[in-house]
Amino acid sequence: MAPPRSVKPVLLDDAGPADGVADVLVVGFGCAGACAAYEAATAGADVMVLERASGAGGTSALSGGELYLGAGTALQREVGVEDSPEAMAAFLREALGPAVDEDKLQAYVAGSVEHFDWLVARGVPFSPGLYDDPSWMPPTDDGLMWLGERSWPFTELATPAPRGHRPATGHFGGWLLMDRLAAAAREAGVREEVDTLAERLVVDRDGRVVGVIARQYGEPRTFLARQAVVLTTGGFVDDDGMLAAHAPHLIGKDKISCGGEDGSGIRMAQAVGAAVKHMSAGQVGLHAVPAFMARGLVVNKHGQRFINEDTYPGRIGQAALFRHDLDCWVVLDEKGYEEVPEGERWGVLPHHVADTLEELEQLTGMPPGSLAATVALYNEGAARGEDPMFHKDPRWLRPLEPPYAAIDPHRSFRGPNDPPVGGGAAVFTLGGLATDVDGRVLDLDGQVIPGLLAAGRASSGLAAWGYISGTSLGDGTFFGRRAGRTAASPTERDPALTRAPAPA
Amino acid sequence: MAPPRSVKPVLLDDAGPADGVADVLVVGFGCAGACAAYEAATAGADVMVLERASGAGGTSALSGGELYLGAGTALQREVGVEDSPEAMAAFLREALGPAVDEDKLQAYVAGSVEHFDWLVARGVPFSPGLYDDPSWMPPTDDGLMWLGERSWPFTELATPAPRGHRPATGHFGGWLLMDRLAAAAREAGVREEVDTLAERLVVDRDGRVVGVIARQYGEPRTFLARQAVVLTTGGFVDDDGMLAAHAPHLIGKDKISCGGEDGSGIRMAQAVGAAVKHMSAGQVGLHAVPAFMARGLVVNKHGQRFINEDTYPGRIGQAALFRHDLDCWVVLDEKGYEEVPEGERWGVLPHHVADTLEELEQLTGMPPGSLAATVALYNEGAARGEDPMFHKDPRWLRPLEPPYAAIDPHRSFRGPNDPPVGGGAAVFTLGGLATDVDGRVLDLDGQVIPGLLAAGRASSGLAAWGYISGTSLGDGTFFGRRAGRTAASPTERDPALTRAPAPA
Repeated sequence: MAPPRSVKPVLLDDAGPADGVADVLVVGFGCAGACAAYEAATAGADVMVLERASGAGGTSALSGGELYLGAGTALQREVGVEDSPEAMAAFLREALGPAVDEDKLQAYVAGSVEHFDWLVARGVPFSPGLYDDPSWMPPTDDGLMWLGERSWPFTELATPAPRGHRPATGHFGGWLLMDRLAAAAREAGVREEVDTLAERLVVDRDGRVVGVIARQYGEPRTFLARQAVVLTTGGFVDDDGMLAAHAPHLIGKDKISCGGEDGSGIRMAQAVGAAVKHMSAGQVGLHAVPAFMARGLVVNKHGQRFINEDTYPGRIGQAALFRHDLDCWVVLDEKGYEEVPEGERWGVLPHHVADTLEELEQLTGMPPGSLAATVALYNEGAARGEDPMFHKDPRWLRPLEPPYAAIDPHRSFRGPNDPPVGGGAAVFTLGGLATDVDGRVLDLDGQVIPGLLAAGRASSGLAAWGYISGTSLGDGTFFGRRAGRTAASPTERDPALTRAPAPA
Repeated sequence: MAPPRSVKPVLLDDAGPADGVADVLVVGFGCAGACAAYEAATAGADVMVLERASGAGGTSALSGGELYLGAGTALQREVGVEDSPEAMAAFLREALGPAVDEDKLQAYVAGSVEHFDWLVARGVPFSPGLYDDPSWMPPTDDGLMWLGERSWPFTELATPAPRGHRPATGHFGGWLLMDRLAAAAREAGVREEVDTLAERLVVDRDGRVVGVIARQYGEPRTFLARQAVVLTTGGFVDDDGMLAAHAPHLIGKDKISCGGEDGSGIRMAQAVGAAVKHMSAGQVGLHAVPAFMARGLVVNKHGQRFINEDTYPGRIGQAALFRHDLDCWVVLDEKGYEEVPEGERWGVLPHHVADTLEELEQLTGMPPGSLAATVALYNEGAARGEDPMFHKDPRWLRPLEPPYAAIDPHRSFRGPNDPPVGGGAAVFTLGGLATDVDGRVLDLDGQVIPGLLAAGRASSGLAAWGYISGTSLGDGTFFGRRAGRTAASPTERDPALTRAPAPA
């Protein structure tokens, strides 16, 4: 492991002549950066985006593209889904907690309908249609999908409504979302500096953030901001040192990352006094097929169930990793396996098949009698249409019958073109910089650090400890927009720098 | 919740005249502060301790007094216990991980025998004797106790040896430990300023820490250090804001604290650029009697076992809180209850008694059949002297027989003179400042912050995510001593401040 680059801030007096000046500097061109840049430029600011890769996209472009939106979006209404701000807030508060930022939650729910319309106006296409089965990624272009809203305990909190909004690609849609958002930013006049890796912040003698020292083709470059720097540099799943210090349970898992999620933006901001939150939290995408899980059992290495298998699969993944060390199996019967359409099986075949549960215990290394006891209790309830232990919805309840199968998440996820994977789950970090609802970075006293904003996974956003798909692209785009507007506001302007001449 | 006091550093130029100057300023007079002060003074430094309370003690004085030591201490040899550095290191690496600081672990194990002798030389008394049953606090004055070494999985890693070293008080011994350590520091010439709450660090223009701004009887006071400031200010379990950001699972539990564990030292150091580690980790002292747990089952609200009940009870507590939301029960039979000597029952009576497990399920709200299935499987193995699921030691295995009892940790801990408690567990934080093996505080680049050291629970010490009793007093005293020696070293001296005249 190479020693990390220094993140110590550089005093403006020592920063050398500027290689570029803008009103607003945005660091990172993923979804949060694109939205921040667009809004700042649209508000009249001269905006420059610095991106370490050779173009826009980031991890956002590699994602599924889901945005968690609701409270009655145009798409929900078109499909006939009823939803309310109260129901959406109740779901998110429970799913993303404990310790959710209530101000951000309220702002997000209140702005959700408008935000969807804004995305459509930017050219992001959504097809009317609702995919009704549990899935990581529906094989259709239905614009709406369920993300756990119909599962316990959420069913006791509010009327369920599907809120996963998907760009119409019929598959992973993050690339399309990013294509449209980057184009919108460029059309708004945003300038880009690619292959430009920000390394340190520049501060003036009063502690105001006024720029960035970056590396471009091996050479240091100084970029100054007349108004503000917006960090949208992503999380830290690619930095094993930060993982060891804050989230060691994520080490060794497969990473959901474009390769640049090294936490450098978080550390740069900490070095000027920024506070962080929820650094141990992570999303855990278990390598398992949701349609199989809902029809079967997810058990730990002791043959014990631990969650309702029809809930949002990321909740299953978090429970599997943080509570059961990712030592778990998906157990189902032949009938359940066959029920799942071939296109939804992701090519996954059972790793063990057996006519008795005793044999399956032997094959999987579970203690003798453990899985049999679990299935007996499950079947007893399922025959009555009840799951007293974990409250799986009755639509999925049916006594399991031989022959049985066991699937190992460490070996199971094989997309049509994907190689087998070994980490058991794909993870990314949720913790990051403490920001206010307008994107301003806060210091250890809870005070604003002048000139510094953040959004996306460089910040701690909607998700505190829990996670639901679509809240990263959702809060990255939503709070990215807010940060861009804040950055462009005249109140953010630094008089001294505004007077400084731009370089030739 | 009152807004936190500002922790922003103050420039030396702005700090005003000094109210006190010493070579080494130690902030906090718990076990780490006392040891740091003693060693610095013994090495020839002029040492002043600032303590927020009216005298020495801190949370250390309220604790049980156990120190986790081994590798063949004089006490172990006197009692006939064989131990080795390798066995001690193997146990701690597994018990305190993942992501244990290997340098600290190796230094601690290598210095353990000497450290015990040093404590004895300071007047801390230890009686030869080994208490053989699982216990939070043996009711005897035996100097040695087991802290999980004889339980799985540790039995597979190394030959077990008891390493809990207890001052001879026959009960909580933290007060005696602190009495001796504070006396030793005073005898070494350490000066004390009590009722003095450190609020900010003082830094010079080069970023070196050269003092502390404190509040004394409501008035600000400036204390300067010619060589170094050592922060031994404890953890942050008393600060709900920090808990919400870093360790929300600890909110609402009973706190192990003298009342001053507000994280202020951690935040002061972060404000000058210090890095932190493992901020989400916590010790969880389940309110349950270890002798009952070992003889029975600990089950979650689904009636499922989740750990070998004879292991160190803090491991049971961490699993209960972090993996099962502290919704758990201790289930045992009348025979097991009666086996425990009255003096070891802590006044705890069963909350529910029943002749059948079905009845006990109803009384505790467990799903029908769940506890019965767990006990059936447990009894089947116990009859053979085996626990295939969690590997409890055969000495504790016996099929449970009616009548049965269930004890609720949220209501169970009643010492002879203690009121009933409601939090289910007593907790404290384990995360804190990143330090090197000599106590120097590290910044976000992993570089030493000149003039700043830390030890005790203000720092991240031996324990990363796991915990064993005695590692807090153990690493607080051990690395407190090292920090004191480092602080007194001539290489830590600041030439400019050394030349400054002391105030009259």
